Amino acid sequence: MVNLGIVGLGYWGPNLLRNLVANRRAGTVTICDRDPLRLDRIGERFPGCPRTADFHDLLNSPDINAILIATGVSTHYPLAMQALRAGKHIFVEKPFADTADKALEMVNEAESRGLVNMVGHTFLYSPPVITIKEIVRSGELGDIRFITSNRVNLGLHQKDVSVVWDLAPHDFSMIFHWLDAEPDLVEAFGSCYILEGIPDVAFINLRFPCGAIANVQVSWLAPSKLRKTVIVGSKKMLVYDDTEPYEKVKIYDKGVDLIEPETFGEYHLAYRTGDIRSPKLDSFEPLAAEMEEFLRCVETGDVPKTSGREGLGVVKALELADASLRARG
Amino acid sequence: MVNLGIVGLGYWGPNLLRNLVANRRAGTVTICDRDPLRLDRIGERFPGCPRTADFHDLLNSPDINAILIATGVSTHYPLAMQALRAGKHIFVEKPFADTADKALEMVNEAESRGLVNMVGHTFLYSPPVITIKEIVRSGELGDIRFITSNRVNLGLHQKDVSVVWDLAPHDFSMIFHWLDAEPDLVEAFGSCYILEGIPDVAFINLRFPCGAIANVQVSWLAPSKLRKTVIVGSKKMLVYDDTEPYEKVKIYDKGVDLIEPETFGEYHLAYRTGDIRSPKLDSFEPLAAEMEEFLRCVETGDVPKTSGREGLGVVKALELADASLRARG
Amino acid sequence: MVNLGIVGLGYWGPNLLRNLVANRRAGTVTICDRDPLRLDRIGERFPGCPRTADFHDLLNSPDINAILIATGVSTHYPLAMQALRAGKHIFVEKPFADTADKALEMVNEAESRGLVNMVGHTFLYSPPVITIKEIVRSGELGDIRFITSNRVNLGLHQKDVSVVWDLAPHDFSMIFHWLDAEPDLVEAFGSCYILEGIPDVAFINLRFPCGAIANVQVSWLAPSKLRKTVIVGSKKMLVYDDTEPYEKVKIYDKGVDLIEPETFGEYHLAYRTGDIRSPKLDSFEPLAAEMEEFLRCVETGDVPKTSGREGLGVVKALELADASLRARG
Amino acid sequence: MVNLGIVGLGYWGPNLLRNLVANRRAGTVTICDRDPLRLDRIGERFPGCPRTADFHDLLNSPDINAILIATGVSTHYPLAMQALRAGKHIFVEKPFADTADKALEMVNEAESRGLVNMVGHTFLYSPPVITIKEIVRSGELGDIRFITSNRVNLGLHQKDVSVVWDLAPHDFSMIFHWLDAEPDLVEAFGSCYILEGIPDVAFINLRFPCGAIANVQVSWLAPSKLRKTVIVGSKKMLVYDDTEPYEKVKIYDKGVDLIEPETFGEYHLAYRTGDIRSPKLDSFEPLAAEMEEFLRCVETGDVPKTSGREGLGVVKALELADASLRARG
Repeated sequence: MVNLGIVGLGYWGPNLLRNLVANRRAGTVTICDRDPLRLDRIGERFPGCPRTADFHDLLNSPDINAILIATGVSTHYPLAMQALRAGKHIFVEKPFADTADKALEMVNEAESRGLVNMVGHTFLYSPPVITIKEIVRSGELGDIRFITSNRVNLGLHQKDVSVVWDLAPHDFSMIFHWLDAEPDLVEAFGSCYILEGIPDVAFINLRFPCGAIANVQVSWLAPSKLRKTVIVGSKKMLVYDDTEPYEKVKIYDKGVDLIEPETFGEYHLAYRTGDIRSPKLDSFEPLAAEMEEFLRCVETGDVPKTSGREGLGVVKALELADASLRARG
Repeated sequence: MVNLGIVGLGYWGPNLLRNLVANRRAGTVTICDRDPLRLDRIGERFPGCPRTADFHDLLNSPDINAILIATGVSTHYPLAMQALRAGKHIFVEKPFADTADKALEMVNEAESRGLVNMVGHTFLYSPPVITIKEIVRSGELGDIRFITSNRVNLGLHQKDVSVVWDLAPHDFSMIFHWLDAEPDLVEAFGSCYILEGIPDVAFINLRFPCGAIANVQVSWLAPSKLRKTVIVGSKKMLVYDDTEPYEKVKIYDKGVDLIEPETFGEYHLAYRTGDIRSPKLDSFEPLAAEMEEFLRCVETGDVPKTSGREGLGVVKALELADASLRARG
Repeated sequence: MVNLGIVGLGYWGPNLLRNLVANRRAGTVTICDRDPLRLDRIGERFPGCPRTADFHDLLNSPDINAILIATGVSTHYPLAMQALRAGKHIFVEKPFADTADKALEMVNEAESRGLVNMVGHTFLYSPPVITIKEIVRSGELGDIRFITSNRVNLGLHQKDVSVVWDLAPHDFSMIFHWLDAEPDLVEAFGSCYILEGIPDVAFINLRFPCGAIANVQVSWLAPSKLRKTVIVGSKKMLVYDDTEPYEKVKIYDKGVDLIEPETFGEYHLAYRTGDIRSPKLDSFEPLAAEMEEFLRCVETGDVPKTSGREGLGVVKALELADASLRARG
Repeated sequence: MVNLGIVGLGYWGPNLLRNLVANRRAGTVTICDRDPLRLDRIGERFPGCPRTADFHDLLNSPDINAILIATGVSTHYPLAMQALRAGKHIFVEKPFADTADKALEMVNEAESRGLVNMVGHTFLYSPPVITIKEIVRSGELGDIRFITSNRVNLGLHQKDVSVVWDLAPHDFSMIFHWLDAEPDLVEAFGSCYILEGIPDVAFINLRFPCGAIANVQVSWLAPSKLRKTVIVGSKKMLVYDDTEPYEKVKIYDKGVDLIEPETFGEYHLAYRTGDIRSPKLDSFEPLAAEMEEFLRCVETGDVPKTSGREGLGVVKALELADASLRARG
């Protein structure tokens, strides 16, 4: 049984908490937030959870083995470092830190102390992303040539970070995971429309050592949600549309649309000549699987699938993309 | 080389003609229509085709081996019988005749004379319908339990026939073909909204000797086109949507949508647990394949895939459906 | 504040309970189930709810104003009658009763006692169905000509009721609500494939006094879920697809697909000539709105939107459909 | 009546020809191709068209008013200049020329001689693109913030030009037309997978003086066709999917998907809160409208909607994109 503390009860914190308390590996979960009203409101829903407004109570409690950090990104580093120095395993929400330097320091501190350090790249625990990883690994798509991804919706503008820091962690974590690589080139192009100095649309180019390239479009400005990723391999193409209810993942076999040439008097033929397959996806809540992974690693000492190193890789790319974006703004 | 005559140059006639003249088996095609303007207008497009306004010219020409009849349904029987008595092979547009008795007489006349008699069930030459037939025959779907089909659009009301005679031939010919059977029960329910005495919406129930049942919905009243057929077998389900550009046919593997029960605090899970496959379809114009089949059978004496017997089967079911519809109106 | 009892903690009971406890009008909710394990399991999730295995405890408690009945359909009548005789307002899950006679008796008993009696036609509290009602009422569609509805999925076979009793209450309650009418003709055609004597696919025809007709297809045999309703009016057509994530409701303006005639050498044109609109839908949980309606009516004495009379209307139609189905089986 | 010559009878030439001969403004159309087999094959289909293998016959014929150039891009410039110097109006297939310098020279030559010069940006004559232009101009979308466009399919690799020159003219011509502007920044990122030195995937960034930015993805490597353009304005968003059969254009009203926060025990709500509208599109063949525009301008002297200046603008952007692409390759 792992006893836990969780700090930050804003949007994600309660979702982590809900899944923690439902997990049989979890013992007591102490909840912590500086805002007493929020602490009470969430506390009422989880009557079995001790409450505190002081993070030091989590650090000082000898019963607590691990701490989950779901606060604003600017506080990830100081809270994580304190937790590690107090000998606690850590789970840190994405993005792992607000600079690559801090992220590296967090990873080094954890590794030198032999503590589990995990980042909340939740998408990597979702059935479609897991299935895509298996398909890529199996070689069914052939060599990956390029990936395009768009993630747009009407979002509340964050006052302190660009859309890159807010939305790109999802795409970056997925793409790096599927390709099992970090990019050797990151550049971004974008614009600010609502708040000066806060880019709200960005087009990011990535290049990977294997030769694959990627283009990630992120924006807060679209009134409808689009979440589509296309992976083009040398053999097949895969489309992942997270807004589809039933056929989130589709694999397109090689095939030409025979519509040309439109010779004189010829019928308009639009039949495809390749199969399309939408694979079976498992049914579970990604956050539950993520909490299970953290608790399991705390118990066993295993390195989590989304360790701090993966968090660091994403932060490095975010930092490069953001710098490239601002350099041209 | 087969020399042909074609009578009726309204909507379908010119389409048949276009495919005939493009077929290397076809020799001279003489075109015939009582309307001299229409004859001239179509004749100009096909300068190589002799023209006549008199059907007897087709009958009396010793060079003409076969006649295609694309006139109004009420004239199919007299024209076809004259053609057969003149020793010509016949192709008759759907529906084959306006009563089952006449259809049977046409088939008997043709068979007794050893002449090819074919009905224009064009859908049976279309790539999706052919692929579905192969899938059904392969046993992939298991035993066919039920078929539902809707075919609605905003049509011009015909003054003399119900929507059943106008639209149901498509569905009937496909369903009978897939099941390789004619129904032992046909009943219909519907209503007339625009013209008194001319039903413009009908729901038709069919039962087949194998135990399968079907429900066919036809209407001229819908402002948008819907053309969807669902085949539910004991193993898999197939959906055929003719309005889809790329994925006209989809096969759904057995799979439950695990969304229930929505226990307290549980996430809404909508992932499916079965594969969906959209098979490769060939690319050709159905009418071209239909004309090829007719010409081939005239040359070889083979019985066409859509012989007069199939035309008769569909006419029998149309007659029963129409009678059932009117009995309740 | 309304104090409530709820009997039956199978599938729907806990969902009702979850929404009851979250409603500020609800006081104490006593939960009741004969199965002690189930009572404990659900009770643990709702620590504030008194528990009992004996329905008489609900009846005898003077503090309880209203009782919700979420047991099997065969027990609706006896439990409801006891509750009414004990002076309790009642909410009864759909279908309201297993015969029209019993349903009528329940309504009469409640009305003579001035007690609220409500049926759980949950769909009528869902945003798409509410929006469709407003569209129909506004006259935008013109006169309703016909409605087709299919509701198929792979269901667990019930051992005692046909698919008509299991699935048709949804479609019937919606259609009767939209048309503000009960049918004057109900007939069904179907078949049994899995369990003898338990029809598992049915095609139901309905006719309404206004002249509209409807065709409802229900089945447990389809491996994928289809839930599509088409309403064709004299002016426009509406399509409601409950499996769509974003565009559940679409309104098709009058418009012809100009694809014919395919004159020689002509391009295949498939553009539509009418607008399609997908209206804004509100965002709330139907069950929460349903519980709110029940609690509000108990407080005010108002007749609920889905009163026992609506429940009776649906049960009458179910009884007729089932009888018609069995008469031909 | 305009007498015309057309040179180049490969893929596009015969399509132009088919639409020319059907246009009542067109007189004699002389066809020209260096390949005698091709000349004969096409000539047989258009028996009314004089044939020549020598381009000088077109130049020297005093009866020919205008020449259409549908040859490979590298020959556009020399053929167009000869035609202009011979006093012929010109229509040139896209891309207008293979360098911006040549394109400018062509435009200047034509303007100084008062000759019509038009480029075959066919998409700008298609109903969806025309409708989108009207919507943008009406202000319904508000200020255009950004446009993303992807155009991928499995194409035959061209041996001499990159995918940018092959596919981007479509997107560039549409985007420049909608925004009524040419970009002040063009940059591209891509890769070569099949042929060395011939990029077959490219991501292109564009910035416009009005502040709008765009991202265009083009590739020959995808086994299925994707053609989707998203225009995000300050008020609404428009999605144009050319692979959709019926709803090619959709306008999304402002609206948030209220799915967060997922508070404890809350239902997953995915309803949208803004209308979606798919506007009525006209039905005509773009090429027919394009030929009509050319013939009309030759008769009246009007400047065509897609004049050589538009062709030049696109060539400038293609040149910049290609240079940027190769600079990083």
